[in-house]
Amino acid sequence: ALAAPAVVTTPPEVHWRLQSSFPAQIDTIRGGTEAIVRTVGVLTGGRFQIEIGEPGDFVPAEETFDAVQAGKLQAQQTCSYYYIDRDPAFAFGSSMPFGLNARMQNAWIGEGGGQHLLDSFYDHYDMVSFVAGNTGVQMGGWFRKEIRSLPEIAGLKMRIAGLGGTVLERLGVQTQAMRIETTYAALERGTIDAAEWGGPSEDEKLGFYRVAPYYYYPGWWDGGPAIHLLVNKTAFEALPESFKLALKASAAQSSQTMLARYDVRNNQAIRSLLDKGVQLRPFPTDLMQAAYKASFELYDELAASHPHFKTIYGPWKAFRDQIYQSFRVAEYAFDSFGFAQQAKGL
Amino acid sequence: ALAAPAVVTTPPEVHWRLQSSFPAQIDTIRGGTEAIVRTVGVLTGGRFQIEIGEPGDFVPAEETFDAVQAGKLQAQQTCSYYYIDRDPAFAFGSSMPFGLNARMQNAWIGEGGGQHLLDSFYDHYDMVSFVAGNTGVQMGGWFRKEIRSLPEIAGLKMRIAGLGGTVLERLGVQTQAMRIETTYAALERGTIDAAEWGGPSEDEKLGFYRVAPYYYYPGWWDGGPAIHLLVNKTAFEALPESFKLALKASAAQSSQTMLARYDVRNNQAIRSLLDKGVQLRPFPTDLMQAAYKASFELYDELAASHPHFKTIYGPWKAFRDQIYQSFRVAEYAFDSFGFAQQAKGL
Repeated sequence: ALAAPAVVTTPPEVHWRLQSSFPAQIDTIRGGTEAIVRTVGVLTGGRFQIEIGEPGDFVPAEETFDAVQAGKLQAQQTCSYYYIDRDPAFAFGSSMPFGLNARMQNAWIGEGGGQHLLDSFYDHYDMVSFVAGNTGVQMGGWFRKEIRSLPEIAGLKMRIAGLGGTVLERLGVQTQAMRIETTYAALERGTIDAAEWGGPSEDEKLGFYRVAPYYYYPGWWDGGPAIHLLVNKTAFEALPESFKLALKASAAQSSQTMLARYDVRNNQAIRSLLDKGVQLRPFPTDLMQAAYKASFELYDELAASHPHFKTIYGPWKAFRDQIYQSFRVAEYAFDSFGFAQQAKGL
Repeated sequence: ALAAPAVVTTPPEVHWRLQSSFPAQIDTIRGGTEAIVRTVGVLTGGRFQIEIGEPGDFVPAEETFDAVQAGKLQAQQTCSYYYIDRDPAFAFGSSMPFGLNARMQNAWIGEGGGQHLLDSFYDHYDMVSFVAGNTGVQMGGWFRKEIRSLPEIAGLKMRIAGLGGTVLERLGVQTQAMRIETTYAALERGTIDAAEWGGPSEDEKLGFYRVAPYYYYPGWWDGGPAIHLLVNKTAFEALPESFKLALKASAAQSSQTMLARYDVRNNQAIRSLLDKGVQLRPFPTDLMQAAYKASFELYDELAASHPHFKTIYGPWKAFRDQIYQSFRVAEYAFDSFGFAQQAKGL
């Protein structure tokens, strides 16, 4: 028999369009997207080019998901919990109230079985998902007046979306979706009483502190929200192996960089906000306890009514409970002791 | 004037040798090294090949650092604090007692000015350094008998190296370096009273729990030790840009994977160790307080006597103090509340 001749294949030229859910002003996330695109370009000798669009650039913002599913766009950068109205299971990939912090989220998705569960779920949408960033624990938002106990939030009007909003509604808050561009004016006029967006560095730029000075923590609904690349599966599968790996490696690199950048910027911003007179407050304990109880009741209900949610929730909850226990040992003891000593000026 | 003609350059074929400080049995770290090598290979179409050696494979283990500096080897994977006898400033890149946890270490090196400080330091050795992993907070080691207060460690013989060992000596411990292969027998015979190595998943494999059942936490000298690639600078600078980026992106990807893998494996191992009857104990508070005080006294002394240490210590300490403060807000509040609720069975 004849040996097969060596075949030298030249990689194809590939051009993708990626529409982001985030405008360029959200520059920590945008910086991550640009880094991925730049790195992929260099790693593939310029053969794999990804064009970035802002919300609405390629397709209307609300059609982005469908466009990626249909292959009209190849990719989207987003926080998957924006799509919980399609299926609440979209929350797992980004963040669940009282769920995983950033490091645990990476552990669950990367090595704890999460990626496999997400892959099976995204198969229903002809997509694959890759972690491409994380913001760390966010803040609980801006309130026009101080909230000293759970009963004081009853009737409050708050801009908040997602499962955290559903939980707050069960505690008596009137939540509403609202574009971030109109939120400042609504807070200023008192049309709404509170609004949440992200962490200190982005919150500072939005300027809400000027009209709603009470800044609550923690954002228990955003313990470590991952930013994802959602990619059309057919487009991804058509890539040569080296292009696939270039996308994955640059997404992982960008993910690590984004979290580090948020940590450094939030550190600076929280200082700056305090200098501006912002009143930093922990959520009252009774509010936290009621929200915790309402969250897990909600999960039980969602698992009963949504099969994809149920499939992921079981192993997710087991992982969450176990890693909480193991982090309580060395990780938490290290942080707790050091933080307490440093706070004493030692 | 004539336009310069387009020049098509074919990337060179590059072959590197990387000697690891870790034998293959330390498979979480080894897995990271192998992933880097595999990814770099695919991303460069097989043109950038890195051969991995175990300690002693290419040069004797204790000559690895000099071989990389001289360019006899191109790279080493190691924990840089193994080289504090050359200069205590080598500790900053991996871990300092009561220093940064894994996430803060990534934030400091990646976005907080740390990489620039390390680059200037490694310039003296004709090297560049890249983070390529992290173990998370390690454990405080195995003790043959229970330690209930600071005075009880006086005179104890313990296998521990690095700055943590120096601090423990100041508290009355007789520390000694000892190869990990001979440590089990020494613990069993009582030649030493205690020994530390790493986190639960590796510690379980070493089997120390059979002869020293008291397992202390946290490893306050290892709050988030980074694993580094130390690379000969001339060899690195000679790489084409795409090869440099392939190395950096795959190191970052491997870094994120390694931490996730440790988190998942340690979670499983600590359960397994408890099932085997291991006695889990927090270090006594008076011991922690004395160690904390001795650590920062040591840093002041090292800054007075070692100029490279001094250059890095100032900004490192400022970063550490500030990020401790900002993490105390949302990150710590989120973890603390959730951990406490979950521990109550809620």
